[in-house]
Amino acid sequence: MNYATITETDMEALRAIVGEENASFSIEERLCYAYDATNRDYMPDGVLFPATAAEISEVFKLANARPFPVIARGAGSGFTGGSVPVDGGVVLSTERMNRIIEIDTENMTALVEPGVVNGDLQTAVEAEGLFYPPDPSSLKFSTIGGNIAECAGGPRAVKYGVTRDYVLGLEVVLPTGEIIQTGVKTMKGVVGYDLTRLIVGSEGTLGVVTRATLKLVALPETVKTMLAVFPSLYAAASSVNDILLSSPLPSTLEIIDGACIRAIRDFSGGKALPEAEALLLIEVDGTDETVLSGTETVRRICVEGGATEVRIAAGKREARELWQARRAISPSLKKIKPDKLNEDVVVPRSNIPALIEGIQDIAKERGVIIASFGHAGDGNIHVNIMIDSSDPDEDKRGQEAVRDVFELTLKLGGTISGEHGVGTAKAPYLGMELSADVIALMRRVKESFDPNGILNPGKIFCSAPIEG
Amino acid sequence: MNYATITETDMEALRAIVGEENASFSIEERLCYAYDATNRDYMPDGVLFPATAAEISEVFKLANARPFPVIARGAGSGFTGGSVPVDGGVVLSTERMNRIIEIDTENMTALVEPGVVNGDLQTAVEAEGLFYPPDPSSLKFSTIGGNIAECAGGPRAVKYGVTRDYVLGLEVVLPTGEIIQTGVKTMKGVVGYDLTRLIVGSEGTLGVVTRATLKLVALPETVKTMLAVFPSLYAAASSVNDILLSSPLPSTLEIIDGACIRAIRDFSGGKALPEAEALLLIEVDGTDETVLSGTETVRRICVEGGATEVRIAAGKREARELWQARRAISPSLKKIKPDKLNEDVVVPRSNIPALIEGIQDIAKERGVIIASFGHAGDGNIHVNIMIDSSDPDEDKRGQEAVRDVFELTLKLGGTISGEHGVGTAKAPYLGMELSADVIALMRRVKESFDPNGILNPGKIFCSAPIEG
Repeated sequence: MNYATITETDMEALRAIVGEENASFSIEERLCYAYDATNRDYMPDGVLFPATAAEISEVFKLANARPFPVIARGAGSGFTGGSVPVDGGVVLSTERMNRIIEIDTENMTALVEPGVVNGDLQTAVEAEGLFYPPDPSSLKFSTIGGNIAECAGGPRAVKYGVTRDYVLGLEVVLPTGEIIQTGVKTMKGVVGYDLTRLIVGSEGTLGVVTRATLKLVALPETVKTMLAVFPSLYAAASSVNDILLSSPLPSTLEIIDGACIRAIRDFSGGKALPEAEALLLIEVDGTDETVLSGTETVRRICVEGGATEVRIAAGKREARELWQARRAISPSLKKIKPDKLNEDVVVPRSNIPALIEGIQDIAKERGVIIASFGHAGDGNIHVNIMIDSSDPDEDKRGQEAVRDVFELTLKLGGTISGEHGVGTAKAPYLGMELSADVIALMRRVKESFDPNGILNPGKIFCSAPIEG
Repeated sequence: MNYATITETDMEALRAIVGEENASFSIEERLCYAYDATNRDYMPDGVLFPATAAEISEVFKLANARPFPVIARGAGSGFTGGSVPVDGGVVLSTERMNRIIEIDTENMTALVEPGVVNGDLQTAVEAEGLFYPPDPSSLKFSTIGGNIAECAGGPRAVKYGVTRDYVLGLEVVLPTGEIIQTGVKTMKGVVGYDLTRLIVGSEGTLGVVTRATLKLVALPETVKTMLAVFPSLYAAASSVNDILLSSPLPSTLEIIDGACIRAIRDFSGGKALPEAEALLLIEVDGTDETVLSGTETVRRICVEGGATEVRIAAGKREARELWQARRAISPSLKKIKPDKLNEDVVVPRSNIPALIEGIQDIAKERGVIIASFGHAGDGNIHVNIMIDSSDPDEDKRGQEAVRDVFELTLKLGGTISGEHGVGTAKAPYLGMELSADVIALMRRVKESFDPNGILNPGKIFCSAPIEG
C-alpha cells in the first residue's frame, strides 16, 4: 500500500478537528508514541488526542481521502506491536477519553471510554461490591480500549474467562468514518451478526472503540492465596490437571518454573521464594465456606502430587507478598539475559506436561535459556526465550527456538497466542496456525471494514510469511 | 437475486455428490423440509443428506456455478424462519452428521457433528461427570448445529451464558466451498479475527458448521428447584432483581405471568399450579452447602418481596413436576387462541417491571391477550401475543402489538431478540434496532463470505423494512 505523506495542510486539518492543543507533530512527542512493549520503534507522523467519536470520524474521513494510516493507541503496553505505526501515519491516543461514564449497580454493567485504565475500573467497581475479572499483568497501566483490541486475559481467566466474555456492546468508529453501536446493554442479544466479538481481539484493525458496555459480576466474598512448592516441573504441571478436575474451580492457577524461580531469588537476594524446580500460585474465591473447603482440596491435591510445601497466605499482606514474587518474574528475567522473546502459547490443559518437557528439550537443543511461567489453569504458558540479541548466533538460535516452540504447541493441539495477539511480532508465523483459506477470508473481512487499508496497517497479516 | 431453477442435470450432479439414497426431490420429502416452528412454509427444490464437509463443499461449488440457494437445516425447530428455504433451492439436512466424535474428560471439551441433538449431548457428557449448560426449551430435538446458528440460550443462561460461550472452535464449509477450521481446542486463543463467534448466531448465513469443539464444565453436585407464588407480576419482577444481587447466582430464574398460569391450570384441570398472578421458578446449583444456603437466601427474598408461598422441591420427582408446568406453557396457550406471535425481547434486568407493566398496557390498548413468561434472570421475556389470525382485525391488532412491544423494549434499553434470532420473522424490524450503517456493514460482511448470495438467502436482511 502506498500512503500519502502527511503535509502541512493535513496537519492544519487535523489541528482543526481535535483542537490545536490536542495535535502534536513535534519529533519529541512523536517519539513517545513510536513504541510498545516489543521494543521495536516506528515513528508516527503525528499524534492526536481526540475527545470524541465525532472527532475520530473526521480524522478517518481525511485519512481515506489522502490516504494515510491511522493507529489507535491505549497505553502502548502490548507485546506484539499492535499499536506501533509501522507504516507511519497518525496515532490516535485515547488518553483524554478516560471517563467511567456509568457503573450500573442494578444491572451490573459499566459504560466506559477506551482510555480508562483497567485497574482504575476494577477499583471503581469494587467500591460498589462489583467485580470486573479480566486482569492482564499490565492492569495498572493498560487501558480497556487496548484490552478489548487484544482480548486481554490474565490469571483470573481460568475461572472467569477473558475480555471477550465481559464486552456486551461497543460504540465504534469505523475506518470509513461511520460511528456505529454494536451489541447490547443486556445479558443476551442475537440481532444481526456479532460485530461486538468480531471487534474484540481484532487488534485495532477493524475500528476504533470509543465506548464499551462491560458486564460486571458480584465481587466474591473472600479470596485465599496459596503457594505450592514442587521438586519438579512435571509434578507441578500434573497437579494442575488434578486441581482443575476438582471442585470448585480456582480463580487463578499459575505455574512458575525453576529458571524463573532462580531469577527471582537472585533479584531479591533469595528472600522472596524458596528454592524449587516449580511453584504453583493458586487462588480460590467465593463464599467463606466455599473458599475454606476449596483451599483444603487444593492443598491435599498438591501434597498428593508431590508438593514439599504448601503455604496458605494468612492475610492480605502475605497474599500480596506471594503475588509480588509472580510480578517480579519479568524484571528478574532481565538478569539472565538482556533480551527476551516472549511468547504466550496455549495447549489443551492435559498437554501442559508435554509442552513443558518439550520446551526443556528445545532449550537444550538450541543452547538457549527458556524460562516459563503463566496461566497453567487454562493451558496458557508464557515462554521466555532469553537471549543477548547483539550476539548474532544467539539471536539466530533464539529465533529458531521460537519456531520450535510454535511447532510443538501446534502439534499438541494448541495455539500460538492466548492473549497477546499477532500484531507484527507473530504475523510471519500466522500461516503455521491458520490455513491460506482462513487468512484469505480474514483479509476479505478486513476489506469489508476498511476498503482503503488505512486503519492500523501491517498487523496480523504479513507480506513475508513463514510457511507452516 | 435471480436464482436458477434446479434442473434434471443438477439433480443428477447432486445425487452423484451425496449418493443416490441421500438426495430427494420428491414432493413428499420436500414438504417435510419446508417448515420450521414459525409455521410459514416454503418448498425447497430438493433435500440432501450429506455425511461429510467434502460433500457439502461440492454442493456449494455447483450452487455457485448455477447459482441456486443452499439452506442448512438441523431439526427445523427455530422460531424465526432461519432454516426455511424462502427462495427455494436445496436443503442440506444434517440428520446423518450426528456423531459425538469425542468427549475429552481431561480437557473438558466435546467434538461433535452438527446433527447431534442437544439433549443427547447433555446425557452423554453428564455420564462423564461433565455439563453442557445451554438448554433451549427445544433441547429434546433441536441440534447443536441449529443451536450454534441461532446462538441458543435457555433457562440456565442466567448463570452459565449462551451457546456462544461454549463454542471454542468450528469446522465450517464456506459458501464459496472452502472447508476451514476456526478457533481453537484450548480455553484461550486470539490468533486472527474471531471467526468462530462471528459464525455463532449468524443464522446459517455465513457458512455450514460441520464440526464443533465445545467447552464443558464440571457437573454441579446438586440442583434444587423452587417455586414462589406472587400476588402480582410486579412483585415477582421486583424480587428477581433482589435475587440477582444476592449470592450465589441462581442457575435458572424464570417468571410466569397470570395469563400463562390460567392457561396451564385450564389445560391441566387446575392441578399443575396454584392460582396466582405470577410465579418464579428458580433453581440453585453447586455444592451441597452452597445450594442449602442459596435456597434459603432465595426463599427469604421471595417472602420479603410478597410471595404468598415458596415451594422447595423435596426431590427429583417434585422438581420435574414443577418444570412440567413451565413446559406446559406453550401447548396451554393454544387454548387461549389458535395463533401466537412469539417474541423474545430482552431488557436490562432492572427494567423488567417496566417492561411487564408496559406489555399489560399494550394488551389493553390493542385489545389482545398477551401471555408473558421466560428467563427473567437475564431480562429475556417471551412475549406471546395470542390471536386468531383468521380474523383480519385481530391479526392487524396483533401485529400492531408486536411493534409496540419492540418499541417499548428498545426504549427500555433492550433488544428485540435474546435467543431466537432475526430470520424472516423479525427481518422487517431490523432497522428499529440497528442503524443503516450497521446493517450496511453486516451486508458487506455477508458478501465477504458469500459473494453470490447462495447461502440461506432472505434472512436477517429484508427488502421491505419497517423503519424504526
